[in-house]
Amino acid sequence: MPFDTTIATLKSEYGDRCATSDAILDYHSKGEAYHAPVRPDAVLFPGSTEEVAAIMRTCAAGACPIVPFGTGTSLEGHVVPIRGGVSLDMSKMDKILAVNAQDLDAVVQPGVTRRRLNEELRDTGLMFPVDPGADASLGGMAATRASGTTAVRYGTMRENVLALEAVMADGRIIRAGTRARKSSAGYDLTKLLVGSEGTLGIITELTLRLQGQPEAVASGVCTFDTVEGAVDAVILTMQSGLPVARIEFLDELQIRAVNAYSKLSLAEKPTLFLEFHGTNAGVAEQSERFGEIAHEYGGSDFDWATKTEDRNRLWRARHDAYYAVRALRPGAQGYVTDACVPISRLAEAIIETKKDIADSGMLAPVVGHVGDGNFHLAILIDPEDASELKAAEALAHRIAERALDLGGTVTGEHGVGMGKMKYMAAEHGDGYDIMRQIKRALDPQNLLNPGKIVDMN
Amino acid sequence: MPFDTTIATLKSEYGDRCATSDAILDYHSKGEAYHAPVRPDAVLFPGSTEEVAAIMRTCAAGACPIVPFGTGTSLEGHVVPIRGGVSLDMSKMDKILAVNAQDLDAVVQPGVTRRRLNEELRDTGLMFPVDPGADASLGGMAATRASGTTAVRYGTMRENVLALEAVMADGRIIRAGTRARKSSAGYDLTKLLVGSEGTLGIITELTLRLQGQPEAVASGVCTFDTVEGAVDAVILTMQSGLPVARIEFLDELQIRAVNAYSKLSLAEKPTLFLEFHGTNAGVAEQSERFGEIAHEYGGSDFDWATKTEDRNRLWRARHDAYYAVRALRPGAQGYVTDACVPISRLAEAIIETKKDIADSGMLAPVVGHVGDGNFHLAILIDPEDASELKAAEALAHRIAERALDLGGTVTGEHGVGMGKMKYMAAEHGDGYDIMRQIKRALDPQNLLNPGKIVDMN
Repeated sequence: MPFDTTIATLKSEYGDRCATSDAILDYHSKGEAYHAPVRPDAVLFPGSTEEVAAIMRTCAAGACPIVPFGTGTSLEGHVVPIRGGVSLDMSKMDKILAVNAQDLDAVVQPGVTRRRLNEELRDTGLMFPVDPGADASLGGMAATRASGTTAVRYGTMRENVLALEAVMADGRIIRAGTRARKSSAGYDLTKLLVGSEGTLGIITELTLRLQGQPEAVASGVCTFDTVEGAVDAVILTMQSGLPVARIEFLDELQIRAVNAYSKLSLAEKPTLFLEFHGTNAGVAEQSERFGEIAHEYGGSDFDWATKTEDRNRLWRARHDAYYAVRALRPGAQGYVTDACVPISRLAEAIIETKKDIADSGMLAPVVGHVGDGNFHLAILIDPEDASELKAAEALAHRIAERALDLGGTVTGEHGVGMGKMKYMAAEHGDGYDIMRQIKRALDPQNLLNPGKIVDMN
Repeated sequence: MPFDTTIATLKSEYGDRCATSDAILDYHSKGEAYHAPVRPDAVLFPGSTEEVAAIMRTCAAGACPIVPFGTGTSLEGHVVPIRGGVSLDMSKMDKILAVNAQDLDAVVQPGVTRRRLNEELRDTGLMFPVDPGADASLGGMAATRASGTTAVRYGTMRENVLALEAVMADGRIIRAGTRARKSSAGYDLTKLLVGSEGTLGIITELTLRLQGQPEAVASGVCTFDTVEGAVDAVILTMQSGLPVARIEFLDELQIRAVNAYSKLSLAEKPTLFLEFHGTNAGVAEQSERFGEIAHEYGGSDFDWATKTEDRNRLWRARHDAYYAVRALRPGAQGYVTDACVPISRLAEAIIETKKDIADSGMLAPVVGHVGDGNFHLAILIDPEDASELKAAEALAHRIAERALDLGGTVTGEHGVGMGKMKYMAAEHGDGYDIMRQIKRALDPQNLLNPGKIVDMN
């Protein structure tokens, strides 16, 4: 094995925290999606930034790849150690180091998950709003530039990571950004590392922007006769500057799945789930305004649920959308797409996509963070059936190409990993080569999560 | 002259648009601040991205430096061509290429100024909110990561540049980002170029996020007995999630200057100028809440001006603050500082700074974008008097060091240029070397605005 010496060195230094058992290697061989698993040679569980730096230096000396691993919930094969080497499991670095209530920020280690942070924040009146669905680690969320249902109001990890600490390919520890809310002090290394998927450095600490917990929250459901009506209502909502906290689209098939799985009885039509945050008066005003807008586009009347219990039921159903979809076809897996387009092109993107789905004959409900122009399909396939995988790939390919044709991106929030690399040249043109130059400058041996985002060959 | 051949080539290609007259060279020898002017060898006025790329290639062939120039309003010597070569004046690239009302974005050439854009937007119901005071070019604002009074609500250029086009050091044209509101497609080259001050590439087009013009705007003034009272009111305002559009601090000396210059009669005490944007009901609610908060910290009662005329008078006075300060000492120039700290440390930072000012015996009013923790001094000096310049530098140095001690940054919004380079190693540690590695990778000849941000020697 090419990395035997390196692994032996790490084993001698870290003992049990350098694991090589089959179960652990298997667990770290894949994310949540369809990409073929590859085992690392060893899994390391560092406990501090200094240990990460030391492991990095040992790997660098042995030319051994190193792939950071959070909760393994990413969807584009980011955590698959395709060239073997070390999977660096950050789960033991799970301390909340500071909550600075006056500054609305928190300093955390990368292994802290978003739910855990919010549990710790509950009594402070603050919250961390970014919500990608999975209870992902905050380090992983930063590395993939995750977002989700609340990005329309609070932004993605791009907007919510104020500063970070990272170990670079040569083992140096850098701090990027400060706890000040803004800065013009040179190149924005924070934003460069957010979304770099472990290919430029290993995030070892994050300073996150927090929000006050809203005084009032209102949620509601609004159904439309057509996809166009629903999306046009979204466009006008955004244009009016209504500060929606969530505005989610579910197509009729997704609603059927949700009804069955979550015991709801919603009309099986294009539907928006909404949430407003604010003061009592503000939330009431926003709800009313949205009602007027929806009415213009054929939206149903709707009841606003301000009771926590009713709201939780609704958003639990939205969060469970993927499981609901899988229950439509027991045993099937979802092949998930992630296009994001300018919102003016969203109706067109979804309508054309639904034609493609119909042509493909596959089951593929559509959900979307439509306030951002982002939508997903979960194409249901039998993972053992090569022809179904091929058909799903063809459908996903059409969606990605259409996103580019409409001036959008092939990945709104899931990241590049292995799955989207083939589109990077088309999306970025010569910019992709600039990414490669940056990668080469900062990781000349190509050890940090090699084979992801940029192809160095 | 080392660049004679290059300039001759450019002259033959661009004729009048390659200017070498004394007046034009002088105009492009400096920004608005105290840094010693240096003339370029020629000033080029490109009319298109392709021309920028061609000029870049000619410069690269002749190893001739190239320094982008917007309106020359920057404050840290960014536009001073300290190694001679070409000053690239972007003022002819001043087209608004598209206003996409449905997507709340606009595509502009870099020479468009922020006021011009807002004039063009007036009838669309949209606005571009970033307001650094000067009527700067949008390309320059992006290059320096500018912000100003409204950043507390709408963010800085970092948050408001969605995508851009740039010419890189080898003459390649890249497009970074898309008009989609978010993306996880690889390294964030948009955010890397924003704030890079022309040292990594020349911005030739920008896609900017727009906002709806608020239905209602309310402004007001609130005076406090102490700096601490004013800043504590700001902290609680931010913590409460009140979406203030502007919250500006002016100390008693600044108020005295403003009263004299703008014919106002405000109490000469630590003062906040505020602005709220929203619906009529929302603005009323926000104003009332702020009133309660201010009252807790000894703030005065205040009247809210919702009439455009009254509001304009107030904000005109704020915008003219620098001229008002200079009128305190006719003939003097302002040496401007730009610290930004976590908001919890802001009262301390300002109070200690005011002690330093008193010790120095200089006139130096304080203004601040306090919702972001950012504050400025305009230290009044006789520019001909070396001992005054030295004393101002010493005071500015204490402020910069204190900003770092308090976990902040030496520049909140003015940028690094030449003026702040000496602090970069202290602020960024090994991260500064990472910046250098990126610069070397993308501009190996060090031709793009050499001697700014990163020292390559």
